[in-house]
Amino acid sequence: MRLGRVIGTVVATRKDESLTGNKLMLTQPLDLDYKPIGDAYVAVDTVGAGIGEIVITTHGTASRNAANKKNSAIDSAIIGIVDNIDVYKELLDE
Amino acid sequence: MRLGRVIGTVVATRKDESLTGNKLMLTQPLDLDYKPIGDAYVAVDTVGAGIGEIVITTHGTASRNAANKKNSAIDSAIIGIVDNIDVYKELLDE
Amino acid sequence: MRLGRVIGTVVATRKDESLTGNKLMLTQPLDLDYKPIGDAYVAVDTVGAGIGEIVITTHGTASRNAANKKNSAIDSAIIGIVDNIDVYKELLDE
Amino acid sequence: MRLGRVIGTVVATRKDESLTGNKLMLTQPLDLDYKPIGDAYVAVDTVGAGIGEIVITTHGTASRNAANKKNSAIDSAIIGIVDNIDVYKELLDE
Amino acid sequence: MRLGRVIGTVVATRKDESLTGNKLMLTQPLDLDYKPIGDAYVAVDTVGAGIGEIVITTHGTASRNAANKKNSAIDSAIIGIVDNIDVYKELLDE
Repeated sequence: MRLGRVIGTVVATRKDESLTGNKLMLTQPLDLDYKPIGDAYVAVDTVGAGIGEIVITTHGTASRNAANKKNSAIDSAIIGIVDNIDVYKELLDE
Repeated sequence: MRLGRVIGTVVATRKDESLTGNKLMLTQPLDLDYKPIGDAYVAVDTVGAGIGEIVITTHGTASRNAANKKNSAIDSAIIGIVDNIDVYKELLDE
Repeated sequence: MRLGRVIGTVVATRKDESLTGNKLMLTQPLDLDYKPIGDAYVAVDTVGAGIGEIVITTHGTASRNAANKKNSAIDSAIIGIVDNIDVYKELLDE
Repeated sequence: MRLGRVIGTVVATRKDESLTGNKLMLTQPLDLDYKPIGDAYVAVDTVGAGIGEIVITTHGTASRNAANKKNSAIDSAIIGIVDNIDVYKELLDE
Repeated sequence: MRLGRVIGTVVATRKDESLTGNKLMLTQPLDLDYKPIGDAYVAVDTVGAGIGEIVITTHGTASRNAANKKNSAIDSAIIGIVDNIDVYKELLDE
């Protein structure tokens, strides 16, 4: 799973019907300082995440499991809202 | 899922028969300013996307679900046409 | 799926028996100008592709579907021979 | 599978219920000198790994197998604690 | 599938039980000149590969198929030992 921030939404009237009922959120991957890394992607929300929140996302089959839509066109989902992270960065200098 | 723009088509007379009936679209990944990022790839169209349109693509099993061809050779599909995106970029400066 | 060029073959006498009967082709990913991008990989041929041909490759479960070997050790397959591509690059400047 | 170091934990009260009971560990990928490479990600612990330990992680369906939760939202798991690695780097100069 | 060289082994006493009986090999991805590219990873051996050998690796479900352990925590496997490769590099200049 990856850390990310919800930074927007996608509006798509014409789309695969399996996506109906799931908000399409633009998610920006973050590093451990919550700084942007890499390219934003589209994930369905499964936990009621709001704009600006730090979230956990999952990918592939796991995202369809989270959305409870095994036969859907979904390949990424927001599956948790981060309260906080505890990081021991000094470990990286060992 | 990823944002992309349909920028062309692929003609392949000799191909896996499971691809028959699906247009093969060249899709360019885009960032949130709709600028090209990374390498273009081939995706089947499942929503009637036209050349130049901004689309949502999915990958892996999800793409076969979208094409309703679970046993096919497909690994990428266009599953939505983007009307617009709402992005709150100021969130990235937090 | 990805565009690539068949640039060689791999000879491996000792290998997973599920690979028997499939040619192992070295495939070089290409951009839309057919210039090399990224690292070459090994794909099984399922369409009779020859050395030098421009092909479409697929990855993961899709490649085992294409080879009609669902329980095999295959994770990449050549599934089409490209006749030509039509690219509208001016769309990238929008 | 990949080598990594457990460098922290993620606290998320609101999350997919399939994650309940699994610690969410921040894992930093490592090279063969145990130096950080690439971006940290979130993996569930399945072997009782502690902060600072060098571990083996797996991804995709394999991670749900390891957690014994096939229908879960998990896409990465810690599946082993590294006692040591034996590396023959001189082989890279051949 | 990818080309790689076996450059070491991983010792892990505490690990997912589905890994028992499979050697964990450190594998370095190689280009077509057998030069290192990218980061080494951990793959289970399924063909009796030795340290220093050039091998073919597979990833995801294919690796569990190769190991004949569909429900395991494996996501990468060595599935062939390369005798030689035939590369037509001049094709890349076309």
